[in-house]
Amino acid sequence: MTIFSKIIAGDIPCHRVYEDAHVIAFLDIGPVSRGHLLVVPKEVKAQLHELSDESAAAIGRVLPRLARAVLAATGATAYNILQNNGALAHQAVMHVHFHIIPRIGSAGLGVGWNSGTLSASDASELVTNMQAALHA
Amino acid sequence: MTIFSKIIAGDIPCHRVYEDAHVIAFLDIGPVSRGHLLVVPKEVKAQLHELSDESAAAIGRVLPRLARAVLAATGATAYNILQNNGALAHQAVMHVHFHIIPRIGSAGLGVGWNSGTLSASDASELVTNMQAALHA
Repeated sequence: MTIFSKIIAGDIPCHRVYEDAHVIAFLDIGPVSRGHLLVVPKEVKAQLHELSDESAAAIGRVLPRLARAVLAATGATAYNILQNNGALAHQAVMHVHFHIIPRIGSAGLGVGWNSGTLSASDASELVTNMQAALHA
Repeated sequence: MTIFSKIIAGDIPCHRVYEDAHVIAFLDIGPVSRGHLLVVPKEVKAQLHELSDESAAAIGRVLPRLARAVLAATGATAYNILQNNGALAHQAVMHVHFHIIPRIGSAGLGVGWNSGTLSASDASELVTNMQAALHA
């Protein structure tokens, strides 16, 4: 039970932008940039890989629509979608949530990108193991 | 037309993990961490807000399943989902794609988070303008 359950139940107020049977979207009260929006499944799961297909599809379906609303309201043209899983990956509230973060001037998500290379042998091993997990 | 269209068409090879009528997922050849996966709609759109509800729902639906496969194959327990829109927001290939990036030790997505506060008056204005855009 996190603060998001209380928001979904209406026990704590929020700046609600959108709600349907599966999803609620409201403004982040600690915005990284103006218009920073949180998109939250009503299903109570801490991390994305625990979410039902139905909830996950419902979130996916509304993301483009909500992104258009954020762009219209802020005048931004660029933005990031971020969804963190686990404290090590910067998750703060342990209920699944997607951030829509407009890029407005220098305000927005900082992205640190230290990329490597993929060897043929490691690619083959990863594909085999991921496909095995998908078919398990 | 980007390199992703050629991958979807099968004209350029990829390390494919998953494919259905709407979505293809393959390993990033410049991984930020081991198991870094790209999830791409077959619909040819540069940015998420342009995507159809159908494509967006199909992507959303498979994200948890693919995240489970990435965790199983890598042993990671934390991860980020990132989707960039616009060069200003670090988008490199101008075809919608979601990154699944495991956090493995110090390898993973760098997240820069310079958050502010949300005033009641700005919240009210943003909610009004976002809801107007949603209902337009």
